[in-house]
Amino acid sequence: MPRFALKIDYDGGPFQGWQRQAAGQPSVQAAVEAALSRLQPGPHTIAAAGRTDAGVHGTGQVATVDLVREWEPFRLSEALNWHLKPAPVAIIDAARVPDDFHARFSATERRYLFRLVARRAPVTHDRGRVWQVLNPVDTAAMRAGAAHLIGHHDFTTFRSSICQAHSPMKTLDEISISEHAYAGGVEYRFSLRARSFLHNQVRSIVGTLERVGAGTWAPEDVKTALEARNRAACGPVCPPQGLYLTGVGYPVDPFA
Amino acid sequence: MPRFALKIDYDGGPFQGWQRQAAGQPSVQAAVEAALSRLQPGPHTIAAAGRTDAGVHGTGQVATVDLVREWEPFRLSEALNWHLKPAPVAIIDAARVPDDFHARFSATERRYLFRLVARRAPVTHDRGRVWQVLNPVDTAAMRAGAAHLIGHHDFTTFRSSICQAHSPMKTLDEISISEHAYAGGVEYRFSLRARSFLHNQVRSIVGTLERVGAGTWAPEDVKTALEARNRAACGPVCPPQGLYLTGVGYPVDPFA
Repeated sequence: MPRFALKIDYDGGPFQGWQRQAAGQPSVQAAVEAALSRLQPGPHTIAAAGRTDAGVHGTGQVATVDLVREWEPFRLSEALNWHLKPAPVAIIDAARVPDDFHARFSATERRYLFRLVARRAPVTHDRGRVWQVLNPVDTAAMRAGAAHLIGHHDFTTFRSSICQAHSPMKTLDEISISEHAYAGGVEYRFSLRARSFLHNQVRSIVGTLERVGAGTWAPEDVKTALEARNRAACGPVCPPQGLYLTGVGYPVDPFA
Repeated sequence: MPRFALKIDYDGGPFQGWQRQAAGQPSVQAAVEAALSRLQPGPHTIAAAGRTDAGVHGTGQVATVDLVREWEPFRLSEALNWHLKPAPVAIIDAARVPDDFHARFSATERRYLFRLVARRAPVTHDRGRVWQVLNPVDTAAMRAGAAHLIGHHDFTTFRSSICQAHSPMKTLDEISISEHAYAGGVEYRFSLRARSFLHNQVRSIVGTLERVGAGTWAPEDVKTALEARNRAACGPVCPPQGLYLTGVGYPVDPFA
């Protein structure tokens, strides 16, 4: 059966996460599988690079699907987008891939963006799209705290207690933090990059760094927390709505 | 009565525009006036710098209001934001201003942003926040077309037939166009700046420039259209949801 990779963009707000749930619970996976079943009788089970939590968004999620017949990839994406309407889920690219390509197991890099907005007045345009705090935070302090997390570490502290990964050892390749103009406030964008992440790792890290930016934690406290290898040492896990899976890397980019 | 200037940020989607409408028709003005009446028995009539159309957004609208008692401006903005919830309208700054300051008549500059996204797949995160077209457009050609509009001109071609301005003569100080990364496509941001604009002027200009970017119009056709001084010579008026009133300039910035 011909295998296809899909690049998927979605607003996570209305969904209980990527992964298919019990009947009646909306998920991004179920939305895409339902659209697939309009093209070819189902059931379909698609595999994704990142199983994003409820409320988490995607702008570059990747999933693989096996279909009975050959499709011209562009026509496949157009047909799926037609059937996905009006759900806020869109196929932004599609490619024919070899049988041994797997969206999750072939991935060598995941990229996430976290949007934090500091302003007093409630956000209007970006409700459900950013995490809002009331006061500006110290970017230099957050960068100093983040520096302790770069590299190969035991990330037990920054891992959900329900994480199913075999090992808490992960290599974090990048945390960069940039400031952006925002009406009545400031926006901070955190870009994180790793081969793979533990469950809640990004939200645990950003929530901890925000405490550093607010001055409640010193940058060195991040090192202490990491070395504790203890979930209880983590700062608050920040809410999901500021998080975006922006891209997935493979040894050969299927969409190139 | 002490006079205050409010800087207002709003998602125009749920509103029939800035201006108060017949009862039952939501408007941004009515939302702010209703919040004011929770602080001081009404009725209130506030004056704004730009009477944005239905669906048009604000990130830096300015309005003036007269109140019976003195307020500390920060407390005024906090109280109004409390009463504005859950409407997507927020007071992002407030200032005490002299009695002769008027949000509309004292303004010496209006700044607008228009967001155009070109991609095949339907937009998800930015539904109601951008104008979407399917194919990329030529930024250099749009810039060449826009250059004909800079300066002091008779903008009859780019003016709504219901525009109430006394004269079609306006001075357009800036149209800059920038390209931005957008998942699965490209975003084009148009920044326009003038002392004041005619009704539908920004949307008439951007709709015309998009035709230039698509290759349907030559850049020089914009000059021909302008010189025709005829509404029928205008390109299509683009939809409101990509438009943002981002700022208003005054001889002395009341919020500085």
